[in-house]
Amino acid sequence: MNMLEIITKKKLGQALTREEITHFTRGAADGSIPDYQLAALLMAIRLNGMTARETTDLTLAMRDSGDVCDLSAIPGIKVDKHSTGGVGDTTTLVLAPLVAACGVPVAKMSGRGLGHTGGTLDKMESIAGLTVSLTEKQFVDQVNAIGLAVIGQTASLAPADKTLYALRDVTATVDSLPLIASSIMSKKLASGADAIVLDVKTGSGALMETVEDAIGLAKAMAEIGQLAGKPVRAIVTGMGQPLGTHIGNALEVKEAIDVLSGRVRGDLLEVALLLGSHMLVVGGKTEDTDAARAMLVAALDSGAGLEKLRAMITAQGGDATCVDDVMKLPQPALIREVKVGRTGYITAMDTEALGYAAQAMGAGRVQKTDVIDPAVGYILPVRIGDAVTADTTLCTLYARNEADAIKAEAAIRTAITIGDKPVTRPPLCYAVVTAKGVETLN
Amino acid sequence: MNMLEIITKKKLGQALTREEITHFTRGAADGSIPDYQLAALLMAIRLNGMTARETTDLTLAMRDSGDVCDLSAIPGIKVDKHSTGGVGDTTTLVLAPLVAACGVPVAKMSGRGLGHTGGTLDKMESIAGLTVSLTEKQFVDQVNAIGLAVIGQTASLAPADKTLYALRDVTATVDSLPLIASSIMSKKLASGADAIVLDVKTGSGALMETVEDAIGLAKAMAEIGQLAGKPVRAIVTGMGQPLGTHIGNALEVKEAIDVLSGRVRGDLLEVALLLGSHMLVVGGKTEDTDAARAMLVAALDSGAGLEKLRAMITAQGGDATCVDDVMKLPQPALIREVKVGRTGYITAMDTEALGYAAQAMGAGRVQKTDVIDPAVGYILPVRIGDAVTADTTLCTLYARNEADAIKAEAAIRTAITIGDKPVTRPPLCYAVVTAKGVETLN
Repeated sequence: MNMLEIITKKKLGQALTREEITHFTRGAADGSIPDYQLAALLMAIRLNGMTARETTDLTLAMRDSGDVCDLSAIPGIKVDKHSTGGVGDTTTLVLAPLVAACGVPVAKMSGRGLGHTGGTLDKMESIAGLTVSLTEKQFVDQVNAIGLAVIGQTASLAPADKTLYALRDVTATVDSLPLIASSIMSKKLASGADAIVLDVKTGSGALMETVEDAIGLAKAMAEIGQLAGKPVRAIVTGMGQPLGTHIGNALEVKEAIDVLSGRVRGDLLEVALLLGSHMLVVGGKTEDTDAARAMLVAALDSGAGLEKLRAMITAQGGDATCVDDVMKLPQPALIREVKVGRTGYITAMDTEALGYAAQAMGAGRVQKTDVIDPAVGYILPVRIGDAVTADTTLCTLYARNEADAIKAEAAIRTAITIGDKPVTRPPLCYAVVTAKGVETLN
Repeated sequence: MNMLEIITKKKLGQALTREEITHFTRGAADGSIPDYQLAALLMAIRLNGMTARETTDLTLAMRDSGDVCDLSAIPGIKVDKHSTGGVGDTTTLVLAPLVAACGVPVAKMSGRGLGHTGGTLDKMESIAGLTVSLTEKQFVDQVNAIGLAVIGQTASLAPADKTLYALRDVTATVDSLPLIASSIMSKKLASGADAIVLDVKTGSGALMETVEDAIGLAKAMAEIGQLAGKPVRAIVTGMGQPLGTHIGNALEVKEAIDVLSGRVRGDLLEVALLLGSHMLVVGGKTEDTDAARAMLVAALDSGAGLEKLRAMITAQGGDATCVDDVMKLPQPALIREVKVGRTGYITAMDTEALGYAAQAMGAGRVQKTDVIDPAVGYILPVRIGDAVTADTTLCTLYARNEADAIKAEAAIRTAITIGDKPVTRPPLCYAVVTAKGVETLN
């Protein structure tokens, strides 16, 4: 097998065989193929695409490039959930406890956040003492004990994807549907869950800006799931504005606690209930998403969801007293309220720019070696469609210092458009995609 | 300047600015941009192309990435010649002495042969004692003394092109018109000649298989020459079969000597006279290519061309007695004649495969570190259109051993199609291209 011939085929727009895909995937995992050849191939794939069969072959080859987690010691249908990433999106910390409280075991492996979106692991690590590094046995034992664990992926999980993902990040080849779909699905399949619910974001802060592209990615992943014999449901949800009102690591943990405590409702809870109800369905609790939603709401109202979060924090070594006193979460040096300053309507948000504003404050990594400041970020209470006056709070900054606060205020003002005429709020959910087809919701 | 933004622009099919092109070219020369980012950019350029302005900017940036040769100490219009490479193409060793004999100084810097086509330097080095490594001063002094020098490019010539060329070779991005044009022209412009004649090959053994692609490349290079203020003429010639009858390094030197001695005529001489006549025109000897051709034929008939070759070999430290006794050139262990074995007509040749057959015998490099065997190769007296019988000589093999000879015979038989009906001989020359336009010759 010759790497130059493989690159040439893809350069000419031809489909690669399973053997060719396995060859370069193994070479990516064991370092036998140089980075520059992989980079050229990735760009050729980005520009010439891959067939559904190629994408599935790549997914399975990346899954098999490392260890595949064995969760058979956990009874029941283990359900995993994955989001393509958004701003103010702490859905996992809301829905995982609720789903677990309804009796479906949640065994979730997360990746680190890169770019403008913080990762679930980074958010969890803002809780004092909490670890996301568990052995496979500890992971299985915790799910058997409390029905819930959220941990970091081990280094031996899909190592080919690790190499290719790191290369894509520095060669402008992240935005490729087959590469995104195979990267996500290889890790999800290697994580060992029985069924998978995917949250595919669309809008100004998402990998897939248009609804069509997001549905395309959702279909690709649902097809891979079917070919790999695992039920996959992908929900296409809006990222035309931050999902929650809190952006930043400790701030998002606080918001998850607020929601699970019943103090706060809104879009974050709505999306968590939507995704969670599909998790209960694929987890075999009920065939009806309305019934599933009712179960989740009951777990919320009874406080069972909050208790599951507390149990998970404790099980992973964290100080769970933050659940009762959110002031125990890391606090910044400076908190400042910013007013809108004019009368009008919130008409649009550049969600990606809002994410970068938080990243610049220290909430995200610019380089992989950057250390995240858990305390920083901002609260953004306004939503698209809101009527505002000069005195309405635009945001509350949680900053390390005056200079950061000034820069963040300017970036947030630039990212939010205020007009004179009211606009309709964008939909929260666009479609539910399974291997059987696409159900459009708006 | 951010390399990721540069890759992204080209990935999206946008034109790069001069500053962006200069940035990545400098980074390629000084090693500050990693190979994998350059590889991704090269694939994006291969698939999304470059405008004429971008191609010229890349050429000039690569020229300026190293030393630019100063040939001002040589009086007159110095003419360089370059071929995109073919099989059995030793035009340089025929025309350079003839052009020099007509009074136009030939100061030529060549690159090493890679792939199936041997380079002029490799052929010259089959002459005992001859060196192609001269200092710039030695180079200038030799041209002033005898009107002719053919040497290897110095390491400091267009170092950005060296990096990018080496990367293209291992990332399947060689076949890109803007990358080919800028690579050739950057080195030609850095070599310091006043005018350039290019031989752009087309056909089964050429970089540009179709006449249209070859004319496109010729136009691109002529335009770059005009923008850089140097007259460029590009002649599109056929490579549907090997140009000369001798393939292999010492064998091609022998054929050049045979032609300059007047013992042999044929396609090699025809193309040498064609290119040489354009060199005399751009060198200011005459405005008329017919008159120029007559001057070259006179230099051939008088033996002045052969004397120039002898003078060059001597000046570069070689044993010029091979000019009078070609048996002094390296000889192989085994020489074997192969018969056609059937009656019919030579209808087609896979010239590239014929090149690889010689490479496999040891006449070319598979890897850059391979050592070439100057003695091996083969003589192929048949031409497309020839009527043959079972007893006609198909080729004479010059091999290291029996095993090589058997493999070469099989490869050559596979590469040559023999049919039952006569075919027309393919044209030798298709077009003359200058910045003013394309003159089609067939």
